[in-house]
Amino acid sequence: MSHNTFGHLFRVTTWGESHGAALGCVVDGCPPGIRFTRAEIQHELDRRRPGQSRFVTQRREPDEVKVLSGFVLDDDGETMITTGTPVSMLIENVDQRSKDYGEIARQYRPGHADYTYDVKYGLRDHRGGGRSSARETAARVAAGALARKVVPGMVVRGALVSVGVKDIDRSRWNWNFVEDPENLFFTPDPESVAIFADYLDGIRKAGSSVGAVIEIVAEGVPAGLGAPVYAKLDQDIAANLMSINAVKGVEIGDGFAAARITGEENADEMRIGNDGKPVFLANHAGGILGGISTGQPVVARFAVKPTSSILTPRKSIDVDGKDVDVRTKGRHDPCVGIRAVPIGEAMVACAIADHYLRHRGQTGRD
Amino acid sequence: MSHNTFGHLFRVTTWGESHGAALGCVVDGCPPGIRFTRAEIQHELDRRRPGQSRFVTQRREPDEVKVLSGFVLDDDGETMITTGTPVSMLIENVDQRSKDYGEIARQYRPGHADYTYDVKYGLRDHRGGGRSSARETAARVAAGALARKVVPGMVVRGALVSVGVKDIDRSRWNWNFVEDPENLFFTPDPESVAIFADYLDGIRKAGSSVGAVIEIVAEGVPAGLGAPVYAKLDQDIAANLMSINAVKGVEIGDGFAAARITGEENADEMRIGNDGKPVFLANHAGGILGGISTGQPVVARFAVKPTSSILTPRKSIDVDGKDVDVRTKGRHDPCVGIRAVPIGEAMVACAIADHYLRHRGQTGRD
Amino acid sequence: MSHNTFGHLFRVTTWGESHGAALGCVVDGCPPGIRFTRAEIQHELDRRRPGQSRFVTQRREPDEVKVLSGFVLDDDGETMITTGTPVSMLIENVDQRSKDYGEIARQYRPGHADYTYDVKYGLRDHRGGGRSSARETAARVAAGALARKVVPGMVVRGALVSVGVKDIDRSRWNWNFVEDPENLFFTPDPESVAIFADYLDGIRKAGSSVGAVIEIVAEGVPAGLGAPVYAKLDQDIAANLMSINAVKGVEIGDGFAAARITGEENADEMRIGNDGKPVFLANHAGGILGGISTGQPVVARFAVKPTSSILTPRKSIDVDGKDVDVRTKGRHDPCVGIRAVPIGEAMVACAIADHYLRHRGQTGRD
Amino acid sequence: MSHNTFGHLFRVTTWGESHGAALGCVVDGCPPGIRFTRAEIQHELDRRRPGQSRFVTQRREPDEVKVLSGFVLDDDGETMITTGTPVSMLIENVDQRSKDYGEIARQYRPGHADYTYDVKYGLRDHRGGGRSSARETAARVAAGALARKVVPGMVVRGALVSVGVKDIDRSRWNWNFVEDPENLFFTPDPESVAIFADYLDGIRKAGSSVGAVIEIVAEGVPAGLGAPVYAKLDQDIAANLMSINAVKGVEIGDGFAAARITGEENADEMRIGNDGKPVFLANHAGGILGGISTGQPVVARFAVKPTSSILTPRKSIDVDGKDVDVRTKGRHDPCVGIRAVPIGEAMVACAIADHYLRHRGQTGRD
Repeated sequence: MSHNTFGHLFRVTTWGESHGAALGCVVDGCPPGIRFTRAEIQHELDRRRPGQSRFVTQRREPDEVKVLSGFVLDDDGETMITTGTPVSMLIENVDQRSKDYGEIARQYRPGHADYTYDVKYGLRDHRGGGRSSARETAARVAAGALARKVVPGMVVRGALVSVGVKDIDRSRWNWNFVEDPENLFFTPDPESVAIFADYLDGIRKAGSSVGAVIEIVAEGVPAGLGAPVYAKLDQDIAANLMSINAVKGVEIGDGFAAARITGEENADEMRIGNDGKPVFLANHAGGILGGISTGQPVVARFAVKPTSSILTPRKSIDVDGKDVDVRTKGRHDPCVGIRAVPIGEAMVACAIADHYLRHRGQTGRD
Repeated sequence: MSHNTFGHLFRVTTWGESHGAALGCVVDGCPPGIRFTRAEIQHELDRRRPGQSRFVTQRREPDEVKVLSGFVLDDDGETMITTGTPVSMLIENVDQRSKDYGEIARQYRPGHADYTYDVKYGLRDHRGGGRSSARETAARVAAGALARKVVPGMVVRGALVSVGVKDIDRSRWNWNFVEDPENLFFTPDPESVAIFADYLDGIRKAGSSVGAVIEIVAEGVPAGLGAPVYAKLDQDIAANLMSINAVKGVEIGDGFAAARITGEENADEMRIGNDGKPVFLANHAGGILGGISTGQPVVARFAVKPTSSILTPRKSIDVDGKDVDVRTKGRHDPCVGIRAVPIGEAMVACAIADHYLRHRGQTGRD
Repeated sequence: MSHNTFGHLFRVTTWGESHGAALGCVVDGCPPGIRFTRAEIQHELDRRRPGQSRFVTQRREPDEVKVLSGFVLDDDGETMITTGTPVSMLIENVDQRSKDYGEIARQYRPGHADYTYDVKYGLRDHRGGGRSSARETAARVAAGALARKVVPGMVVRGALVSVGVKDIDRSRWNWNFVEDPENLFFTPDPESVAIFADYLDGIRKAGSSVGAVIEIVAEGVPAGLGAPVYAKLDQDIAANLMSINAVKGVEIGDGFAAARITGEENADEMRIGNDGKPVFLANHAGGILGGISTGQPVVARFAVKPTSSILTPRKSIDVDGKDVDVRTKGRHDPCVGIRAVPIGEAMVACAIADHYLRHRGQTGRD
Repeated sequence: MSHNTFGHLFRVTTWGESHGAALGCVVDGCPPGIRFTRAEIQHELDRRRPGQSRFVTQRREPDEVKVLSGFVLDDDGETMITTGTPVSMLIENVDQRSKDYGEIARQYRPGHADYTYDVKYGLRDHRGGGRSSARETAARVAAGALARKVVPGMVVRGALVSVGVKDIDRSRWNWNFVEDPENLFFTPDPESVAIFADYLDGIRKAGSSVGAVIEIVAEGVPAGLGAPVYAKLDQDIAANLMSINAVKGVEIGDGFAAARITGEENADEMRIGNDGKPVFLANHAGGILGGISTGQPVVARFAVKPTSSILTPRKSIDVDGKDVDVRTKGRHDPCVGIRAVPIGEAMVACAIADHYLRHRGQTGRD
């Protein structure tokens, strides 16, 4: 990855801050002939949009995506068909309230990138976090909506599996419930909704915050994607997920738990299935062996740290080198991890789409 | 990352299989004027070399590195000075016992990349795992030995913090002990040696295996390296570590544990120190905020799965689509994670060296 | 270069077709702290804008650039200061007359990319040439306006040196005249204006077209930029210039003429100047030796083929595999090469800016 | 291109100087299943090897290539089959006469990269030109030998079309003659041999040198390779050719001459052939329209400057900032361009192979 671009053949470049005129992405290398609608892209954006429950910030942006290039319109006047040239998408920033950033402009908020920005660049756009704003992730989600269509038959879904110290019960996993309108958390465990809501209400009232763990599962990924060494599929998935704001850990399949089991337990045994095709009897590997997809579901998890903006004052310093106590006012999320679910899906979809094209390029196989 | 190259300005390309004539790396983009000796490179290689205790495989390779290009010799006839052109390093494969691979050549070993190689490439070099051989990591270690010298004052060290279900006691952490000749495990906790040895003896006798967790700490990393979005320092560290064989998870700073604490706990507070410079009062972030280094130690951990080669037969299939039971004969490591310590150090050093040059390129600052 | 991005540290991605909503570029990797105004960018765009004389097409686009991200406004409310994050610039397409493309949509125009697009992508946007439209070059010019500011003291200028079979007289070279309002051709030779005008009037009335040769000179380029082998400064300049539509040849310094002189003539001799600094006594090399800049002016030339859209019918085929005669109606340029001058400047500026940052990254020198 | 690597999917990294232990290349991204022999690689190396006539330097290196990785041996014990992993090739430097470089080590030879190296890196390996040595091109030729096999049916050939002021007569073009043992110049015009020999004998005796122009023709290139904007096939060919030492100009098809003809003349008309397939009636475009291959032969030419090492003293300076007169002693080529023919072929083959894989990756078509 380099700068603000990721991917090798399916390449995504994002740009924009939360307080400029707009933000967007350029998706380059998309195969020609892929059919999509603006509504499909918008649907993914709406899934990550803040302001949908009391547990996510109240900034109400329509986040309306415009598709500016890279397609021809089909005769229905609605379906776009990619031409193989760059697809540029743009989202205008509507909610640019000119609030008073006076203090924050000169203070380094703990847990934020304020101090590191200043050290790196010698200046920073303090309004809304600059490039580190969560709004940047809208561009990724838009790109991911296209990536989902690159690999025929692939379905990428995500779910929240932990909020702070509360975990779901995996025995109740129900993918259908994840997108249920009653579900405020992208959780796959219906009974966890009340538990999470109760827990987060307490966190929210205390002006505090907690982190979360999200699991992404990609089904329908052909076997053979990736490479043995530095273009491992899991490596690019890890890099893509780690590039999301506030992510501090990534794991594939059993992940860290794999280190605690034996080789016998960890071996995903195989047999020839009734249809004569190979079947795996387990999936500790998370669908990737030696950096290459096995054909099983690809499973990745990532940990999001607690929101850094909290009401309790924290010790810090300002740009003049003075000690200050920093307290974040205004809207904040008790758990930014909730909204990370569609973002994680998008990043995994992009990584797999890229490897699908790379594999086809090198080997001539789909 | 692409194919067999990683890094953007400090670029490493590795090549070679365990059963060919040799393996090696090309380090491209190294700054001119860096002084090093062959002995320094060799020292790092010797640290990862197998055959040093009963807990690592008995393949006895001298792993003697040759430096073929990219330097001029200083007057002492020993010190090499980089010229800024590619440094090519080569390690010959001595131990190429032509053992009988008959069965293994046609069977897919569970947990190995055998099946995925065949699906991807349509053929594979079954001898010793091809590119997935642990020997490939020697090339990374050689490259890392140069990377260590790119960032003035940087020290990168690693330690084993868990073996299977056994963890070290962090209160006894002693960096000096890690390189102690009595220390068979790169553990920083002297009392853990007996515990690990006893535990692994049992694993080894059972023909079984376990995984491990390794922690890498880079000190002396200047603040300002990295970028806010897709060239995050933590992201490239994660990608580099995930590219090591058998790694299934990576975390930075508190990592997955960060998701379970509150924003108050997670905030690394700051104060102006006695010398007038900023100091952090904690390092939950692992030295990286918003993708950019803070100047604190950079801390990363990675999980290695249990060795896939075990004595207990596992169900699998062969290339002809028949069910078989696979049992690995011959030498094997009860815990491949032990040797991963110098490899992890090398990969972290390479990531930071690359970002040091990229930061200097974009901003003109060191 | 890859897809629609060029550059390594100073990276430019362009997107958009002439008949979509807009086109634009994302400039990534720009150093922080560079001061520029929208008017400066606009000035460069106005220089390449068609519709300024009878020798360039009459499409009258305002080509008004919007800068969407990557800057903070200085207190004057006008000066933008780069933050080091991506600078996204957008130009709306105003003149999208829905003319009848019926015939052209199904015919392959000789000399155009129609046939190759269809073979490559299986479909194409026939309106205005898709990505191959000359309008795409506006995005490059905008990016180049920023690139010019990256290297302190660098001045990049271009001039038309041939139109069809007519050449300038180099003894009359006058840089000041190039931007003279009376100068319709970016020619440095005042007396050539009447000659070119007369010649092109004939070409235009015949519905014909001719090509041109453009020379770009970059002064103030520090010695030391580039690399000896595959990151040669001249190589990246050549690639950048060859990426401009209709360019069929590129040369550096004496170029093809160098092949016809002797080693004695070609050697740029050196002496120590009065100020104790090295001076070159000639510049056959065009400011680049062994891929690395010498500190002399960097000189590149490129040849633009005649406009493919002409009034005389040409034999071709259509998408149904039938023979047809194609004749281009409507507006066309008798010599597209005229407008290529600011585009060539932009591409050379981008190549040098990129190498300036790369050199600084690897060596720590400016 | 970056550093010492070129190509995007078919990637070549070269390393090594003329006076180190060895030089070589790593070819990464080669499709699996390609069959080749060491003898085939060696054959290409032998074609560029110096010391074959009185017109090329007398350094007699066997240039014996070793293939170290990336293949399995077929049952014949000779045929190598690529596995899809990096193919590392190495050529030892045998002729490292420790001659006295005393003077040259401190003088900047005009036309050479001596001065620019020192400015860039602050030090240089003065023995034999370091990376700028013509020996580096052996690595490219070895890589090109593999590239030739990536595109089924492709044939890449080159020929010398000018030496100094002497041009071939194109009406006598005979590809078979190019490889004739009597042909000292890779010329396609049998009658030019005597002319070139006579001319170069004079140049050689005068201790002087001249340049040359080489033409490369690739037949059997499928239509559709390349891209409309920054991944143009001609652009990557130009970059690859410009990366060869001493090359000062590159052109595609009619090249610079295209600028002097009319649109009518330049249009490559098309018709449907007897077999119902499109045929072009001319090839002014050199097989590439809008950056994408047409299916016609791809034609590129490049100009090589006169050898910089000549016997006549030239004015220069030394590292201490003193005026000196430099005269090159010892072996030298009167025309380095002769040997550039197989090198040019290799670079064109690599560019096309890369685009073949990229096209297949993006579009799924061959």
